[in-house]
Amino acid sequence: MEHELHLSSNHPWKPWQHARSNVKECLLRVQSVVGSVVGLEWFCLCALGILTALVSFVMDLSVAKLQRAQRWVYSHLEGYKLLQFLSWTLYPVSLCATSTAFSHSVCPYSAGSGLPEVRTILSGVELPDYLSLTHLFAKLGPFVHLSTMVGAYLGRLRVSIGGQKEVTAHREMLVAAAAVGVASCFGAPISGVLFSVEVMGTHFVVRDYCRCFFSAACGALTFRLLSVWSREQETVQALFKTSFSSDLPYHAAEILVFALLGLLCGAVGCFYLFCHRRILQFTKTNRLISKVLATEKALYTGMVVFLLASVTFPNCAGHFMAAELSMKQLLSSLLDGRQWWSLSQNASVLSPQELAHESLWQEWSTLGTSVYLTLGFFLVMKFWLLVLACTLPLPAGYFMPAFIYGAAIGRLTGEGLAFMFPNGIQSEGKICPINPGGYALAGAAAFSGAVTHTLSPALLALELTGQSTHAAPILLATLLANALARSRHRPSFYDAISIVKKLPHLPSLLRARPELCSVRLGQVLSDGGKVLERGGGVTEVHLALTTSSQVEFPVVDTHESQVLLGSVSRSELQTFLHRAADDQTGQVSDKQMGDVCFIQPITVQASVHTTVRQAHRIMSMLPTQHLFVTEKGRLSGFMTWKEMKTVIEDLANGKTEQIDRQHD
Amino acid sequence: MEHELHLSSNHPWKPWQHARSNVKECLLRVQSVVGSVVGLEWFCLCALGILTALVSFVMDLSVAKLQRAQRWVYSHLEGYKLLQFLSWTLYPVSLCATSTAFSHSVCPYSAGSGLPEVRTILSGVELPDYLSLTHLFAKLGPFVHLSTMVGAYLGRLRVSIGGQKEVTAHREMLVAAAAVGVASCFGAPISGVLFSVEVMGTHFVVRDYCRCFFSAACGALTFRLLSVWSREQETVQALFKTSFSSDLPYHAAEILVFALLGLLCGAVGCFYLFCHRRILQFTKTNRLISKVLATEKALYTGMVVFLLASVTFPNCAGHFMAAELSMKQLLSSLLDGRQWWSLSQNASVLSPQELAHESLWQEWSTLGTSVYLTLGFFLVMKFWLLVLACTLPLPAGYFMPAFIYGAAIGRLTGEGLAFMFPNGIQSEGKICPINPGGYALAGAAAFSGAVTHTLSPALLALELTGQSTHAAPILLATLLANALARSRHRPSFYDAISIVKKLPHLPSLLRARPELCSVRLGQVLSDGGKVLERGGGVTEVHLALTTSSQVEFPVVDTHESQVLLGSVSRSELQTFLHRAADDQTGQVSDKQMGDVCFIQPITVQASVHTTVRQAHRIMSMLPTQHLFVTEKGRLSGFMTWKEMKTVIEDLANGKTEQIDRQHD
Repeated sequence: MEHELHLSSNHPWKPWQHARSNVKECLLRVQSVVGSVVGLEWFCLCALGILTALVSFVMDLSVAKLQRAQRWVYSHLEGYKLLQFLSWTLYPVSLCATSTAFSHSVCPYSAGSGLPEVRTILSGVELPDYLSLTHLFAKLGPFVHLSTMVGAYLGRLRVSIGGQKEVTAHREMLVAAAAVGVASCFGAPISGVLFSVEVMGTHFVVRDYCRCFFSAACGALTFRLLSVWSREQETVQALFKTSFSSDLPYHAAEILVFALLGLLCGAVGCFYLFCHRRILQFTKTNRLISKVLATEKALYTGMVVFLLASVTFPNCAGHFMAAELSMKQLLSSLLDGRQWWSLSQNASVLSPQELAHESLWQEWSTLGTSVYLTLGFFLVMKFWLLVLACTLPLPAGYFMPAFIYGAAIGRLTGEGLAFMFPNGIQSEGKICPINPGGYALAGAAAFSGAVTHTLSPALLALELTGQSTHAAPILLATLLANALARSRHRPSFYDAISIVKKLPHLPSLLRARPELCSVRLGQVLSDGGKVLERGGGVTEVHLALTTSSQVEFPVVDTHESQVLLGSVSRSELQTFLHRAADDQTGQVSDKQMGDVCFIQPITVQASVHTTVRQAHRIMSMLPTQHLFVTEKGRLSGFMTWKEMKTVIEDLANGKTEQIDRQHD
Repeated sequence: MEHELHLSSNHPWKPWQHARSNVKECLLRVQSVVGSVVGLEWFCLCALGILTALVSFVMDLSVAKLQRAQRWVYSHLEGYKLLQFLSWTLYPVSLCATSTAFSHSVCPYSAGSGLPEVRTILSGVELPDYLSLTHLFAKLGPFVHLSTMVGAYLGRLRVSIGGQKEVTAHREMLVAAAAVGVASCFGAPISGVLFSVEVMGTHFVVRDYCRCFFSAACGALTFRLLSVWSREQETVQALFKTSFSSDLPYHAAEILVFALLGLLCGAVGCFYLFCHRRILQFTKTNRLISKVLATEKALYTGMVVFLLASVTFPNCAGHFMAAELSMKQLLSSLLDGRQWWSLSQNASVLSPQELAHESLWQEWSTLGTSVYLTLGFFLVMKFWLLVLACTLPLPAGYFMPAFIYGAAIGRLTGEGLAFMFPNGIQSEGKICPINPGGYALAGAAAFSGAVTHTLSPALLALELTGQSTHAAPILLATLLANALARSRHRPSFYDAISIVKKLPHLPSLLRARPELCSVRLGQVLSDGGKVLERGGGVTEVHLALTTSSQVEFPVVDTHESQVLLGSVSRSELQTFLHRAADDQTGQVSDKQMGDVCFIQPITVQASVHTTVRQAHRIMSMLPTQHLFVTEKGRLSGFMTWKEMKTVIEDLANGKTEQIDRQHD
C-alpha cells in the first residue's frame, strides 16, 4: 500500500494527481473492508477463474467462427475439386504458419502445450520470462500455460497489494492457475483440477486443493453464464450427453472385455509414446530438420500442416476417416449409444427426418464402406498424423486428440463385439444388448490416461457424459492401461517433452533414468557461495556483498571450524553497512557482524549423504529457498533453487560420472 | 520366503510336513512367476478391494434383512398401537445394546466411525492394538476402520512373504485400505478415494493415489458382480438415479440461490459442529453420564436409542417426519426432480398406478400436512437426534445421516422457491421450471462438506446421481459452506472427536489451537535416549542395549564434543556383541564400536529452532522413523514417532507452558 501511495505523490509529471490519489484511497478503504471479511487471496482466485473463463470463451467463439468460415467456403466450392482441395489445405496452413511466426517472434518458448514447463516451475525451479504478460498474447492455443500466466500476474498483484510473503502467495496462485487452465480447457471443473494435480507433482498439499476447486468453480460458472447470455448454449461446457440404458448397462462378462480393452489401449499408448519420443529425438538430431526448425519455423509448420490437411481431404482419403467432422462432432458420434452396425443395416427404415437429425454416425459409413473399415482406417492414419503433429513448433494442446483416438479404439472394439453378439448377451432371461458407446468412453479414458500417466481421464469421461453407470469398468480399463504404460519406467508424454527440451524437472528425469535416484548431494555439490564468519567486520561484509549476488549468506563460527550457526539475509547485511557508514563515532564499524545482524537459525540441514531426490523433496515440501548441507556440524555447501537447477541439468547431461571421479 | 520355509522345516510337531512343504514350494514358484509380471503389491491391493467388497456385501444383505424383519413385524401389528410402539423401539434398542456390549467386550476402542483413529495412525503415530484382527469381528458398523484392519493384515502378510521394507509396505496398504473403506461405504469408487485423501492427511503422495484407485475399482467391480449373481440389483451400488431436465437445468439467476443455500448449509453445519463439540464435552465432564458411559455402556446405549426410537415412532411425532422411510428411501425421495408442492396439488389427478409406483414423496405430506411443515419439523427434530446419536459408544458411520440432513435443507429451499415461482422463471421466451431436487443435491453436498471440512461430497453427489448438469452450482455451494465452516479455525467433525478423545493427531490439534504452530522442538524436546560414542567398547554397547529399547542409536564423535556422526542400528550392535563374545583371541573385544559397526550417515537434521509442525511434516513426508536434532553440529536430542506422540499429547494437555518455563 505504501508503495503505491508513494508512487502517486512522488511523480509530479503524472496527470490528475489529486483525482488519482482520491480514487486510490477509496479503493484502499474498500479493500481493507472487504479484506476483513474474506482474505484478498480468495478475490484473486475468483478473478483468476473469471478471467480464464472469459479468455476461454472468447477463444472458443473465434475458433468456432474460423471453422465455420472454412466449412462455408468448402461447401460453396462444391463441384470444383481443385479449389476445394486448395481451400481445405491452404486455410489451416496459413493460420498455423501465422501462429507459429507470431508466437515465435514474441516469445520463443511458447511452443507445445506448456504443461511440462509449468510443472517444472511449480516444482520450484524458475524459468526466466516464461510467465511474463507479453507472452500471454503470443499464446493462442493451450489453456494451461495461458491461465498460469494470468495466475502469475495476479500473484504479483496480490504480493504488491497485500504485502504478503512472496514465496507462498506466488506459488499458490500458480498451482490454482494450472488447475483452472486444465479445468476450463476440458469444461469439467472437478476432473480438470484432479488432472492438474496428477500431472503437476509427486506430492500434493490438501490446502491447495481447496483453492484450485474454488477458482475452477468460479471459472465454470462464468463460462456457463457467458454461454447463456450470448445465447450460444453449444460451447465447450456443453456436455457430450449420452443416454445409455441404465437398468442393465453391461453384462458381468463384459468386464473382461473392458479389461482387455484397457490393456489394448495401454499397449497402443506405449507404442504411441515410443514413436513420439523417437520423432522428437529425430527432429533434434536430423541435421536438415533441426536446421529448418531453428531458422524457418513457419515454413516447417506450413509444410507439415499441408501434408496433414491433404491426407484428410474429404474427397480423397479423408472420405474414409470422417474428416469432415470437427473434434466435438467426432467425440459425440463416437460416444453414440446405438450400434452403428445395426443402424447401417436399418438405414432405409429410418425416416428422412430422423436421418437428418442424427446423421453424425453416417459420416462413418459413407459410400457403402463398412464402419469397421472406416474406423480401422481412421485409427491407422490418425496414429501417424498425431505423432507428426507433435513436432509442430506451435502452441497447441494434445490431450483432446488422444481422448478421441482412444474413443475410436473403444468404438471399434465395441462394434466388433456387437457384430459377434448381434442379439446381445442373454443373462437369466434378460437380454443385455452390447453398447459400443460405453466401450468408446472406456477406450477414451484408458488411452488418454495411458499417454499422460494419469487416472483422472476416467473421471473426466464420467463428468463429460454424466454416465455414472459405467464408472467401475472405465476405472478398471484406465488402471490397466496405466499399469502397462508405466511399467519399466517408461516416461509419460509430458516426461518425454521435458527430457527432450532439457527442462530442469527432476521427477521426470528420475522416471526415465531411475539409476539417478541414488546420486547423493556430496557427488554434485559445487563449492558453494560466499560464507561469512560470525566475527566478521565491515570489510568482510562489504566484500561478500559486492562479489556475490546471494540473497542469504550462511554464517559459520570461524572460518577454521566451519561450524554452521545460521544464515543472515542480504538486507540485514546492507543495514549493517549503512549503519557503519552513517556512524560518526566509529562504534558500529568496530563491531562484529554477528552482534548487529540477526542470525536466522537453521531449521533443516541435509548432509552429503542425502540423495538429490530427498533434497529436492525437502526443498519443495517445506518450502524453503535454501538448504544447508553439513557434515559433522561443519558446513560443506548449500543448495538454492538455482543450484538445484544446475544440478538437474548436469544430471540430465550425464555429468555425474565426471563429478564422481573428481570426488574419488 | 526363507522365514516361511524355515518355519515349516523346524517344527516337527506340525502335521503333514511333507505335503505342506510341497504345497508351499508350489505356491512360492507361482508367486515368483506371477510376481515377475506384476508386483506382489498389486495382488494384495486387489485382494484388499475384493475382501472389503465381500464384507460390505454381506453386511448390506444382513442389514437389509434385519430392517425388513422390523418392518414386517411392525406392519403385522397394525391396530395394536402399544405393541407397534414396543416393536418399533425395543427392536433397535436390543440390537444396539448387544452391539455395544459385544464391541466393548472384545475391543474397547471400536466406538465411533474410526476415521479419527485411522488418520492418526496414517500420520505416523502408532496406536497399540487398534488394527488387530480380533478387533475386526467386534466392528460391525463403519467401513473405514474395518477395511483398514483388513489392510493392516494384508500389509503384514505382504511383508512376511515379500520381505520388503516394512515401513512403506505397511503404510501403503493402510492408505489404500482407508480409501477403499470409504469408497465401498459410499458405493462410489472415485469420490470415496478423494474423500479419504482429504480427511486423512495434509499432504498426499500421488503414487498412493494410484494404489487407492486400483483397490477401490477392484472393490466396486466385485460388489457389482456379487449383486448381479445374487440377483439383488438394489444394493448400495445402485445409484440414486435422477432425471433432471438437461436442456435448461437451472436459470442463471438461480446460481445466487445456490450460493445462499451453500452459506445456509455452512451456518447450520457450524451450529451442528458446535452442539456436537458441546455434547461430547458434556458427556466427558458430567459426572453421572461419564460414570454410566464408563461402566454401563450397553445401558446408556439402550436408553438413548429408546429415546430416539420413541421420538420417531410413526404413529406419533414420527408421522410428521417421514420416519417410515429407510435412509435410502429418504435420500431418493429428497432427490426427486418433481415439485412436491405441485404434486400434492394434483394428487387426485394421478392414476392409482402412478401413485403406487411413486409414493415415496407422499410420506412427506401425510394427513394433509403441507410438505413445508413436514420438512421443517424433520429438520428441527433430526438436528438434536443426530447430535444425540453422536454420543453413542457404538461403531457407526456419521457421514450418510449428514448427507441426508443437508438434502432436506436443500429440499426445503427448493420447495420454497417453487412456491414463490410456481410457473418457473422466464428467460427470453423459454420457461425454466424450478427443480427442488437440484437444491436437495446441492444442500446434501454442502452440508456434509461443511461438517467434515471436505469438498469431495460435491463429487459424491455427482457420482451417486449421474447429474453432471448441476456440477458447477453444487461445487459452488460446497465451497461456500466449507469457507464458512473452516473460518476462524473451527475444527471439523473428525477434529473434534480427535481432540475430545485425545488422539495424538497433530494437524487437528493445530487447527483447533493455531497458537501451537510456533512451538519449537527446543521447547518440547526431552533428554533423549542413549547416545553412543564412536570409540565405545563392548561394555558401553552392552550397557546401552540392556538399558534402552531404542531401535536406532545416535553415534557421536566423543561424549565431550557431542558432534553427531550418524546412527547405528540395534541389530548391528547385537552382531558386534556376538562377535566379541565368540571371539577367542580377544581381537574384536578390544576394538571400538565405530570400526566394526556400519554407521549409517544422517540424511536430514532438524535444529532446536525447527517447529514441531515442521518436524512432524519432515518425518511423515520422507518418511523417516527418527529425526536427529542438532545445534551447531552438536546433538541435542532426537525424535522418534514414540517421542512425537508424547510431545503431541503434552501439547494437547497444555504442558508447553511448563516446559517453556524450564527452558527459560
